[in-house]
Amino acid sequence: MTDKTEDRRRSIGARRNPQTQEAILEAAEALLLEEGPAAFSIEAVARRARAGKPTIYRWWPSRGTLMLDIYHRQKPLAIHADTGNLEEEVALLIERLIGYWQGGAGQVFRFIIAEAQRDEACADKLRAYAAERRRQTGAMFKRAIDRGEIAPETDPFLAAETITSIAWQRLLTGRLTLKEGEARQIARQLVQGLRATGEAHGHK
Amino acid sequence: MTDKTEDRRRSIGARRNPQTQEAILEAAEALLLEEGPAAFSIEAVARRARAGKPTIYRWWPSRGTLMLDIYHRQKPLAIHADTGNLEEEVALLIERLIGYWQGGAGQVFRFIIAEAQRDEACADKLRAYAAERRRQTGAMFKRAIDRGEIAPETDPFLAAETITSIAWQRLLTGRLTLKEGEARQIARQLVQGLRATGEAHGHK
Repeated sequence: MTDKTEDRRRSIGARRNPQTQEAILEAAEALLLEEGPAAFSIEAVARRARAGKPTIYRWWPSRGTLMLDIYHRQKPLAIHADTGNLEEEVALLIERLIGYWQGGAGQVFRFIIAEAQRDEACADKLRAYAAERRRQTGAMFKRAIDRGEIAPETDPFLAAETITSIAWQRLLTGRLTLKEGEARQIARQLVQGLRATGEAHGHK
Repeated sequence: MTDKTEDRRRSIGARRNPQTQEAILEAAEALLLEEGPAAFSIEAVARRARAGKPTIYRWWPSRGTLMLDIYHRQKPLAIHADTGNLEEEVALLIERLIGYWQGGAGQVFRFIIAEAQRDEACADKLRAYAAERRRQTGAMFKRAIDRGEIAPETDPFLAAETITSIAWQRLLTGRLTLKEGEARQIARQLVQGLRATGEAHGHK
């Protein structure tokens, strides 16, 4: 008896109900697709999902945090290649990321970044998301260290940060068109550096 | 006689009146300093400058464009060092930029970037501003090529973009604290790469 009361209490409280959450995410996703990020609001999502606004707010404190969850769900997992050649992998990552953003997702992601500049909850979530992406992209550089392709003192997460940062800045300044061979050039300029070992330290 | 009429016409039309412009910029700057970016509006600037809103809109189509002009005016010119050692220069640039943003200007700049995601005029102006910054920072890398410090095939503007992109992403994800020696580490990882010559091409 005590257990059941406990269960009931939790279901009313902070515990998430996966079905309702899923229904809200689906409604929000459809809304975002049809109306675009500028028209996206918790109120519109509530109407579409036939959910109460407080229900949505219990899980997502703001439209920016909800948009980031949708963005994350939609993003293809296979953005990192594993070809055994780092320069190629970096070039592919840049091309895939920019290509993905060109397809409409870029409009959503730049809007999320903008929201994060005014909304602390969205900023926290975006920071965690970016850290997770660095971890994933960093694994690509770690593999290259392990197979002796780049210098062992390389910071794989800093290298990962370099790649995503260039992509972000291009997204945010509306420069999403890669010139012929440009992704390869960016990759080469980065990877050549990582190949160089510590010998150049103390230069001049 | 014809010349005078011509003059009068131009002064009424699109020609800028430097005094009024300056008065508006000063009022806007004071407002931004006192109230912060969230409260910044063309309406509030008009009240403060005792100017008509149409006068302001003739020169600045939106608050974002006006904020970018203020940001640009305030930014110290001496952000680029010329020490003859690129790694040192890059580390100094990162430290100065992050340090400058920590002092409140970062709040303004991240707000401008956010505005640019919804406001086309602000986006155009930010894109031009970023291109001009790449040109300036690129000059630092060009000097290093000229003195034979880095590989001649380096793209100086791409190298410049790498630096500012990392700084932007840190600003936008609230990670403006540099760890001890971190700027130097970022600089080293980049500059070592640029020192390596084309020998690594066609690797694997």
